[in-house]
Amino acid sequence: MADGSEKNAVVSNKKVIFKNYVSGFPKESDMVVTINKNLKLKVTDDSKNILVKNLYLSCDPYMRLLMKNQRTEIFDPYTPGAPITGLEVSKVIDSRNPELKEGDLFWGITGWEEYSLLKSSEGLFKIHHTDIPLSYYAGILAASGAVGQLVGQFAKLMGCYVVGSAGTQDKVELLKNKFGFDDAFNYKEEPDLNAALKRYFPEGIDIYFENIGGKILDAVLLNMRVRGRIAVWGMISQYNCDQPEGVHNLMSIVYKRVRIEGFAVAYYYPQYSKFLDFILPYIREEKIKYVEDIVEGLENCPTALIGLFNGCNVGKQVVVVASQ
Amino acid sequence: MADGSEKNAVVSNKKVIFKNYVSGFPKESDMVVTINKNLKLKVTDDSKNILVKNLYLSCDPYMRLLMKNQRTEIFDPYTPGAPITGLEVSKVIDSRNPELKEGDLFWGITGWEEYSLLKSSEGLFKIHHTDIPLSYYAGILAASGAVGQLVGQFAKLMGCYVVGSAGTQDKVELLKNKFGFDDAFNYKEEPDLNAALKRYFPEGIDIYFENIGGKILDAVLLNMRVRGRIAVWGMISQYNCDQPEGVHNLMSIVYKRVRIEGFAVAYYYPQYSKFLDFILPYIREEKIKYVEDIVEGLENCPTALIGLFNGCNVGKQVVVVASQ
Repeated sequence: MADGSEKNAVVSNKKVIFKNYVSGFPKESDMVVTINKNLKLKVTDDSKNILVKNLYLSCDPYMRLLMKNQRTEIFDPYTPGAPITGLEVSKVIDSRNPELKEGDLFWGITGWEEYSLLKSSEGLFKIHHTDIPLSYYAGILAASGAVGQLVGQFAKLMGCYVVGSAGTQDKVELLKNKFGFDDAFNYKEEPDLNAALKRYFPEGIDIYFENIGGKILDAVLLNMRVRGRIAVWGMISQYNCDQPEGVHNLMSIVYKRVRIEGFAVAYYYPQYSKFLDFILPYIREEKIKYVEDIVEGLENCPTALIGLFNGCNVGKQVVVVASQ
Repeated sequence: MADGSEKNAVVSNKKVIFKNYVSGFPKESDMVVTINKNLKLKVTDDSKNILVKNLYLSCDPYMRLLMKNQRTEIFDPYTPGAPITGLEVSKVIDSRNPELKEGDLFWGITGWEEYSLLKSSEGLFKIHHTDIPLSYYAGILAASGAVGQLVGQFAKLMGCYVVGSAGTQDKVELLKNKFGFDDAFNYKEEPDLNAALKRYFPEGIDIYFENIGGKILDAVLLNMRVRGRIAVWGMISQYNCDQPEGVHNLMSIVYKRVRIEGFAVAYYYPQYSKFLDFILPYIREEKIKYVEDIVEGLENCPTALIGLFNGCNVGKQVVVVASQ
């Protein structure tokens, strides 16, 4: 349906509903796909509402944390009975908001549904560079993973010696051959992670990007170099644990005078345009490689999301909800 | 014996010998007191040796770590059969080293023995201000604890709201009444440390000085404020564990964007004279209170050291080996 005719049409709206708080490993049945009928594609009230069509949707490990009934400083949990929310690339169908007009493309948090009615333009980033695949704005261009492949490439650009870890031999090859990591290993085939890290970092680790937690963090702590640094954005190995695993080797923080610091991407959004200036040339010149794992159809979201925790995805997990 | 006649005398030399590596809780029998006879109080060879008489000796929790057969970036383990070593205040009896001459007082690492023969003056700090009790150079003036009482007072001087924790009601009173902490609690009487911290820090903790580890660290992590900071010098609760306890709440590092950094005092020794300029006026004006727990006699060292892990000491544990 062309843009012009889409507005004012009456459509059905498929949604992925969050059923209830999850304990342990999430299952597809923790989400349910429903269809609301008779959605009129027009903003009718006097508010600043924006009606949008969702195009690409990002599946991210942090979403598991929102499935727990736990409010934190950076996340509110999902609401049982309401659609899952997440980072998406969307197009404005109708708008009473001066910030976004019909036809505008943007990325930001919307619902896992075909159409969303947004109350404000806050936190939405208009897309200006459309020579890049739109799906990239549900990933690399929203500074939202798949983090590991990018962190390693950024580190290479800065002159670091980079070793990655992954859960299959194919991914190990991808890290080395496609992304240009100096080395990589399959953590599932290493019975002794401490020994593995000693092999790859005989002089110790200067910088560890922490997205795993648990046993890997414990082994990394033993192998940090004096005054090494650990940037912590996540601990995916712990998200399905009702009680997180204990980490034992924290005295390494003293022995090696390690610095550990947590961060969350949202607090860096004010610097987004600077990030774009940095990253766009690298993408255009293919100096940064970016691998997506693209699934078609909103109804496949639950499977795609759960697949993240089984390592099913190769690269950034994106679901195509609709073409423009 | 006066200084003049002491030199050249032949004396016996009592020592506290480290027997063997310790697992679990250390016992007095892990150390043995021996006496070497016929020590001539004179440096006879051509080296830069220094013969010293040890006066005050510091008992510190970190010493437990040296009783494990584990080499770390900041500690070498004790040698079975050799004397325990530690921070002491000593007096030079005889010297062929131009840096230290007969009669000089200094602090630094020597042996748990009445007399030590030192091979070099490296790491020894000459004592110039003798209007202050000499034992202070085995503690506050060597930037070596008892750390908690001092950190809290420094924090008060900098305008912080300070809450301490201790293991007896008497110590809690000491923290509040003598050291001027805003509040303090007995951690042994708090069945739920998380709830206790919530009570004392309803708005969260900005700065935590970490010397405990384990369950307290876990509770602190839950109660950190956004962008809070944790300085880590030790984890005494773990030193007697063969396998350290697991710490579970590390995702708080992300949620609260916490910074954690380890340090070790030895790396700050180049700034020692600056520290003295800072601390001496506070001590002289009694604006910093300093409580010592002084025990007499080298033979009582093992009991004093082990007492640290039972909370027997009130204030800095010092052993007087000899008066000048």
